[in-house]
Amino acid sequence: MTEGMIRLQQQITFILELDKLKRVQRQTWLTDTSRKENSAEHSWHIAVMALVLAEYAPKNNLDIGRVIQMLLVHDIVEIDAGDTFCYDQEAVTRQADHENQAAERLFGLLPRDQADRFRGLWEEFEACRTPEARLAHSLDRLQPILNNFHSGGKSWRANGITRGQVQGRNRVVAEGAPVLWDYIENLLRRAVDRGILQE
Amino acid sequence: MTEGMIRLQQQITFILELDKLKRVQRQTWLTDTSRKENSAEHSWHIAVMALVLAEYAPKNNLDIGRVIQMLLVHDIVEIDAGDTFCYDQEAVTRQADHENQAAERLFGLLPRDQADRFRGLWEEFEACRTPEARLAHSLDRLQPILNNFHSGGKSWRANGITRGQVQGRNRVVAEGAPVLWDYIENLLRRAVDRGILQE
Repeated sequence: MTEGMIRLQQQITFILELDKLKRVQRQTWLTDTSRKENSAEHSWHIAVMALVLAEYAPKNNLDIGRVIQMLLVHDIVEIDAGDTFCYDQEAVTRQADHENQAAERLFGLLPRDQADRFRGLWEEFEACRTPEARLAHSLDRLQPILNNFHSGGKSWRANGITRGQVQGRNRVVAEGAPVLWDYIENLLRRAVDRGILQE
Repeated sequence: MTEGMIRLQQQITFILELDKLKRVQRQTWLTDTSRKENSAEHSWHIAVMALVLAEYAPKNNLDIGRVIQMLLVHDIVEIDAGDTFCYDQEAVTRQADHENQAAERLFGLLPRDQADRFRGLWEEFEACRTPEARLAHSLDRLQPILNNFHSGGKSWRANGITRGQVQGRNRVVAEGAPVLWDYIENLLRRAVDRGILQE
């Protein structure tokens, strides 16, 4: 095989591996409550949200292309490491190691230059220090809150989640997209009023 | 409500509507053949593919951000119009009208400036005239071929598809990404040899 053919074969191997993210189930329900969503369709949902909601980032000249790339890539490690329910603190702590190994194996399927680039995007997302990463996190948090609210709090109720837990877990949105944080705060008050989220 | 609040509410309404794309089933099977894929996770898959395979576009300074945006948006009309099996010629012809109405309603949920932008992306994809749109189409075609091959030709066999049909339907790849077209041609030959695609 030529070098070019080896490179393409590595890329195709990675692309085929991605198919498995469609089988990683999240705790969030579809809004019609027909089933829980998976991490692949979730990633699509929030990438489109970035296109729609970019204007709410506090910094003006945000690189929205990089936000979208981070969102497309951020859950790929779950193919090996699985999805962690964000209110299970013990699991969240254990998860970091698993995700690092997963990043090593999965991005390592790609040619070296691309492996580094994908890993860089994932690490930027995880570190959550750049305005782009903070907006990406904000959208990753807003989407399940929207789905939870509009599915009658199905996942909140099943897990006995309180308003304080949702606020604490998602405070990154206050920095990443303050207007969206106000929106969330209002939604959570309404959720408590409706009895679908514990005070 | 202030103008800003109305704008955000329109955006959230659109985002909630997007959830329905997770329930639009395609003819393509997951590679493990556990179920058919849906259009939301498919859109994610090909958007990541754009990040990996951009180098195979014949034009060098391609706007890969726009390719990704087109891929994220291109199937949204299916929320109203459904997915059409690409080898059902009669359905493909009927589909154009339905998709136009769907674009009108769905993108029309957004604030006017964004409705125009999303519609523009969708129309650029559909027209398939720019190098960006041609690469987007190429990836949209390559992914189901990969999944079909690696699921033992499940959808090809179920529908009695021939190699000539796959070649005819997907010739856009020859222009959008010639190296990927060679890869596909080779894959189709192997599929015929394996007896999972009719000659």
